[in-house]
Amino acid sequence: MQIALLGYGTIGHGVVKIIESQATKQLRRLHVSQIWVRPEKVDQNPLFTADYQEILANDKIDTIIEVLGGLDPAYAMINDALEHHKNVVTANKAVVARHLTEFTTLARQNHVKFYFESSVGGGIPWIINLERALRIDQIDSIHGIFNGTSNFILDEMMETGAPFDVVLAEAQRRGYAEADPSADLDGDDIENKLCISASLAYDTEIKPNDNLLKFGIRNITAADVSFFKKHHWVVKLIGRSFRRDNRYNFVIEPTLYAPGEIEAGVHQNYNYVGLRGTTIGKLSFNGQGAGELPTAHALIQDLLDLELHMEHLNRNFQQELELDNNSKLLDYVIRSEQDVASLLPDYEVKKEEHDYWIVKQISAEAAHELIQQLEQTEKPLLAAISQQRS
Amino acid sequence: MQIALLGYGTIGHGVVKIIESQATKQLRRLHVSQIWVRPEKVDQNPLFTADYQEILANDKIDTIIEVLGGLDPAYAMINDALEHHKNVVTANKAVVARHLTEFTTLARQNHVKFYFESSVGGGIPWIINLERALRIDQIDSIHGIFNGTSNFILDEMMETGAPFDVVLAEAQRRGYAEADPSADLDGDDIENKLCISASLAYDTEIKPNDNLLKFGIRNITAADVSFFKKHHWVVKLIGRSFRRDNRYNFVIEPTLYAPGEIEAGVHQNYNYVGLRGTTIGKLSFNGQGAGELPTAHALIQDLLDLELHMEHLNRNFQQELELDNNSKLLDYVIRSEQDVASLLPDYEVKKEEHDYWIVKQISAEAAHELIQQLEQTEKPLLAAISQQRS
Repeated sequence: MQIALLGYGTIGHGVVKIIESQATKQLRRLHVSQIWVRPEKVDQNPLFTADYQEILANDKIDTIIEVLGGLDPAYAMINDALEHHKNVVTANKAVVARHLTEFTTLARQNHVKFYFESSVGGGIPWIINLERALRIDQIDSIHGIFNGTSNFILDEMMETGAPFDVVLAEAQRRGYAEADPSADLDGDDIENKLCISASLAYDTEIKPNDNLLKFGIRNITAADVSFFKKHHWVVKLIGRSFRRDNRYNFVIEPTLYAPGEIEAGVHQNYNYVGLRGTTIGKLSFNGQGAGELPTAHALIQDLLDLELHMEHLNRNFQQELELDNNSKLLDYVIRSEQDVASLLPDYEVKKEEHDYWIVKQISAEAAHELIQQLEQTEKPLLAAISQQRS
Repeated sequence: MQIALLGYGTIGHGVVKIIESQATKQLRRLHVSQIWVRPEKVDQNPLFTADYQEILANDKIDTIIEVLGGLDPAYAMINDALEHHKNVVTANKAVVARHLTEFTTLARQNHVKFYFESSVGGGIPWIINLERALRIDQIDSIHGIFNGTSNFILDEMMETGAPFDVVLAEAQRRGYAEADPSADLDGDDIENKLCISASLAYDTEIKPNDNLLKFGIRNITAADVSFFKKHHWVVKLIGRSFRRDNRYNFVIEPTLYAPGEIEAGVHQNYNYVGLRGTTIGKLSFNGQGAGELPTAHALIQDLLDLELHMEHLNRNFQQELELDNNSKLLDYVIRSEQDVASLLPDYEVKKEEHDYWIVKQISAEAAHELIQQLEQTEKPLLAAISQQRS
């Protein structure tokens, strides 16, 4: 298999490193022929080119690996590759979340494959196992810790008691967080991954949009962490979606677990992602959700599947589902300087010490609506209380 | 695909139930044509037959599902099926652990497949993901909670403080434990599963034998559980093996985790099984390790892979490895009426209250040797202390 890489950052390096290791006979069948980079870098490596047309016109190259990240120029370059009858493998969750159905259709029309295992869960074989479960089951729930950077930050804050900014700086120093960490902190990265997962699970098109509920970890302070510890809670940033009949919910928010719950045992930058199916029951995966080698491992799994002509599950994304974040009720912790009890007259609200409030049995939609209102004048906290075990 | 089932117990029922649900288009391509049962049951169902030769001679039947369990007559019947050019799919860990290389060779010679996804981890897609990781990585560690029955018993004892016998009876009432629960309590079931997993991972033949270290949960008392709780430990029955160069270890024993470790969050009858690979890092799976529908789900995944002519990984099992349970040192808790300090003069041994001793930095081999000696006169306890986080 002759491959061209688009981009040569961390993941691209990892792909080349694993292929060049020739550690298994499967790896020895893969060859990186060209690497597309920006013009100013072309001289650094004989495989580098800045001329994408040259790659597209090269009939020996059957597969393109896109590891540029972001929408531009990734979107156009994936389109071009598929139209030139080249398989595309990508780790780019932002572009997949927005164009999954489009790329899938275009690949089918051009008799090539579009694979994206590494876009969710990094090294975790999430997409393939979700698709395999769907061969037998209806999947009615997707949930978990989909972002390693935010998990590292919350875990360090819990372990050390250090403030958010200090821990964020440490995450950046270790290369877990980017210079602009917004996508990791505000839940956008999880939104992309949950959109991809739920679209496959429910066979419908769910793209990132303003109706999906999303509250990140930026407002969590060292004082909040002390409050959680006092109540024996461990905080995790969770993405969750479940479907019932033709309705589904879609929520990303800090969630509080008792120490005996499995999510509380997910440390450092690990991911923990799971599904619930009709006959398989609850199935979850714990592993490296990012990083050079684990993510490159997942990309290369796609290449090996391509080589075996393995069919991924054929989804048409034509189910009609309605977003409903109102039916499921949970208890929430809110930190606010305002009088939450009077803002939520229809709910049972309990005042705790300082500015903490516990709101009983409220929907995610109502809780997020309140928090948006509070955000106009302060930096409030919202965290759901897990009800798995209690 | 025309299928014959050998045996019609819990798992067999599950297979028929899922296939007859026709819940997905993939399931609609599967047909159970005959079911082999004991002669006295033949009249109960038109699909039943007691004549295996009739099934073997039926050219329409291309695949045999063996869900009899045990070695006899399963071993001979699988052999016959492969020799008659029929694919075999089995959930029978005992027969796979003892005859994996033999069945694999026989299947290859007869141009059919021998699949056994459901033999380890029940509904967890363990074998396929282990094999997929091996396409790229060397796997140097297999570890986890491989038996749901013993996990249920330990979890209940931790939650309720009830004695072993009471909880075992409850497990039997719920159908989690069999009338003769020895295989679950003494680690034999885990031994089979760890043999299968390590044989695949290391590409060598590891069959159950007396040199593999194994200590079950039969001796764990309510007082032991109180002692664990006092020290903030959660007890789990763990199977673990790792390889370094041409040596590997293989240990099954109760292991103590701090509450923040992920294994401590695995409750009820769930399994938690994992591997460590060169580039994928640590990857673990949490799910239903037994039960009618999850196990049947895994069996049917094998059928769907057969239908797609999916190749499982080709293993020759020709690596030469040496068993070595002496190199890795851990701290252990021992409960014994005897003077453990004087029995282990070369180790640092600390006496705790009652009959509990903590032995520092001892190999599994030395610890299990001691326990065998103690077992001649009492029912001692042995439990390793996990060193993942401390």
